[in-house]
Amino acid sequence: MAESPVRRPGGRSAHVRTSVLDAGLAELVDVGFHALSLEGIAKRAGVNKTTLYRRWESKEALMLDAIRERAAARVPIPDTGSLRDDLLTLVRTAIANLLTPEVQAMVRVGIALAPHEAAVATMVDSFWTDRLAVDGVIVERAIRRGEIPPVDPAELIEAVLGPPYFRALVAGRPVTDDFLVRTVDLVLNGVGADDTARC
Amino acid sequence: MAESPVRRPGGRSAHVRTSVLDAGLAELVDVGFHALSLEGIAKRAGVNKTTLYRRWESKEALMLDAIRERAAARVPIPDTGSLRDDLLTLVRTAIANLLTPEVQAMVRVGIALAPHEAAVATMVDSFWTDRLAVDGVIVERAIRRGEIPPVDPAELIEAVLGPPYFRALVAGRPVTDDFLVRTVDLVLNGVGADDTARC
Repeated sequence: MAESPVRRPGGRSAHVRTSVLDAGLAELVDVGFHALSLEGIAKRAGVNKTTLYRRWESKEALMLDAIRERAAARVPIPDTGSLRDDLLTLVRTAIANLLTPEVQAMVRVGIALAPHEAAVATMVDSFWTDRLAVDGVIVERAIRRGEIPPVDPAELIEAVLGPPYFRALVAGRPVTDDFLVRTVDLVLNGVGADDTARC
Repeated sequence: MAESPVRRPGGRSAHVRTSVLDAGLAELVDVGFHALSLEGIAKRAGVNKTTLYRRWESKEALMLDAIRERAAARVPIPDTGSLRDDLLTLVRTAIANLLTPEVQAMVRVGIALAPHEAAVATMVDSFWTDRLAVDGVIVERAIRRGEIPPVDPAELIEAVLGPPYFRALVAGRPVTDDFLVRTVDLVLNGVGADDTARC
């Protein structure tokens, strides 16, 4: 078959989509969530605003796609064959992603506004329901390998993400790589209480 | 010695202080942090505003005292003789306190504003540096009893508070008592990986 001279619409469409989602995150950092608008994002992306209105019904819907695709791109799901290595890789990339200005702004907005704005609460809920299930695949594989007994996969992910999120967002203390390693090892092995009783 | 007919100034002063701090938390819930002012808190507490200006240099200083004393009153440090029981009691009272409207508003304000307002970041840092050290006494006692090997006390507290804080504030998922029990047991015992290698 001869090469088509026509540009593939899927390629151009995907490119526009990525530009718009990136513009949404950049605009959030610059103007904050209250001043954020589909119109402002369209202007920043150099795209006609009707294009945005056709694809997203609200700024919350657009930002959900933006944060979801950013996480998918920057926090891939590892499959090293070892639960410890998978969790370490995941928590390292997840926290590096959290600490970027765009993601930090998004997460802090979610925490501040979810109790007051239903659209924000829905966005947060959709993101985490989806994302914890995606991350949980790491745990499901470890269970299938017989590496750990059956546990709730999402809950084990929360156990490793919770302490660094707490430290970064709530307590405002520095999250070092050593801390991430100790967090994963604590979840895998426990603090070492009652060792004699287990053997 | 005969009883003094003069009212003890300490008692009255302490009563005024408590009324003001309670008014600060109630006012925060009603008007939000940006509209919060020492003047508004004084009016709500029925106290002359010069009284407040004499004791607190800013609304952040007053709110730090408010959240610190609320935590001290509602989240006492247990001493049952068992690390598991102490951690369970602590995490249950800490999360019950977090989920009150006043404390939730305060914590969400800290998360939203700390990156933008130095006074808020200082307030958050003072609160948690102090509070994690207070909570850490539970861990220090367990180490002294030989119940667990030496670990960083504040870090073990973060390990049990992190997942429920993550669930309540970040992911917006319900925090059940069963979840708190599983969180404490996971930190104490681990997920059960490599059991054979440890024995």
